[in-house]
Amino acid sequence: MDRGAIAIWEPNHIRSAAIETDSGARIAMPQSSAARFELGAPPSATTPEELLAAAYAGCFTMTFAEQLTASGYSASRLHTEVRVQLVRPGGHWEIPSIRIHCSAIVPGIEEHEFLAIAHAARNGGPIAQALRAEITLTVSLDPGGLVASRGWHVPEQGPGDIAPVAR
Amino acid sequence: MDRGAIAIWEPNHIRSAAIETDSGARIAMPQSSAARFELGAPPSATTPEELLAAAYAGCFTMTFAEQLTASGYSASRLHTEVRVQLVRPGGHWEIPSIRIHCSAIVPGIEEHEFLAIAHAARNGGPIAQALRAEITLTVSLDPGGLVASRGWHVPEQGPGDIAPVAR
Repeated sequence: MDRGAIAIWEPNHIRSAAIETDSGARIAMPQSSAARFELGAPPSATTPEELLAAAYAGCFTMTFAEQLTASGYSASRLHTEVRVQLVRPGGHWEIPSIRIHCSAIVPGIEEHEFLAIAHAARNGGPIAQALRAEITLTVSLDPGGLVASRGWHVPEQGPGDIAPVAR
Repeated sequence: MDRGAIAIWEPNHIRSAAIETDSGARIAMPQSSAARFELGAPPSATTPEELLAAAYAGCFTMTFAEQLTASGYSASRLHTEVRVQLVRPGGHWEIPSIRIHCSAIVPGIEEHEFLAIAHAARNGGPIAQALRAEITLTVSLDPGGLVASRGWHVPEQGPGDIAPVAR
C-alpha cells in the first residue's frame, strides 16, 4: 500500500502553489525560497520542513502511545515537539539533524519502564526509519501536581545509556 | 534556523490527536494504526506518511521550479505526485521506497536541458537529502495541445543514464 500527495505549481494562477493529500487535506506551499527559509518570523505558509516535522511528530507520538498500551500503560497525555534544523554550509540548505522532545503523563509507570519503552519507540516508526538525518530524542515524565518532571536523553545505542537531562 | 511542529495526544479529550506547525497549520492525526494503515479506502485523517509525501512533493517542486528559473526557463505548470510505499515484512510497517512523478509544462525548453535540470533537482532539496528510503523519479514534458507528453526515468547516478518511459 502507499500514501501520497500532489503538489501543483502554477505561477500564473491564483492558487499557484498547493499540496493536496490522499485524505483530502489541502496545504498551502510557499512560492519562494525567501518565504520558505526566511529567518526570524514564522513562515507565511507551511514549508516542506514543517511538514517533515509534523510527519515525524505524529509518527513518534503514535508509536510511543501504542507501545505504552502494549506494555499495559495508558498515556493520559503525550506532547511531542519536533524541530527540523536547517543549515546552509555551502550555499544549499540542508537538514543535518532533527530534535524531538516528548513530555508524557503516564499514570502508574516506573521511570525505568518509561525509558525502555521510549527507547523502543525511538526508531520504531516508519518515518524515523526512512530518515537519514541525525535524531536527538529527549523525553520527560510529568508526575502531575506540583512535583517537577524529570527528563532524559534517549540515545540510539541502548536503554542502558539513557542519561538524565536538566530541563 | 529550524522549522517545527508539535503533536498532542490526549485520549480523554475531544480533540485528542492533533499536530500544529510553526506557521499555525492544524493537522488532524489518526488515533490508531487501523486508521493510519487501513488498506483500501483513503485514511480518515492525514497520516504521517501523507505528510512525508506532502513534504517531499513540495520540496521537489520548489527546487525544480527554482532550478528551471536559474537556467532561464519559466515553468508554467509543475504537477508532482509522491507515493510513499508502506510494507510490513516482519510485523512492523516500513517505508522501503518513495515514488515521485513530475509532469511539467516549460515553454521553449529542449528535452536534454529539461532532463539535466530534473536530474539536478532530483536530490537538490533538503527533504530528499534527509531521506534514507530509495527514491524513484520519473518526469514528463508536456508540449501542450494535442501532442502527447514524453516521459523519462531519472536515476540518481547521472543524466547520461536517463531513459525514456512509456506513460
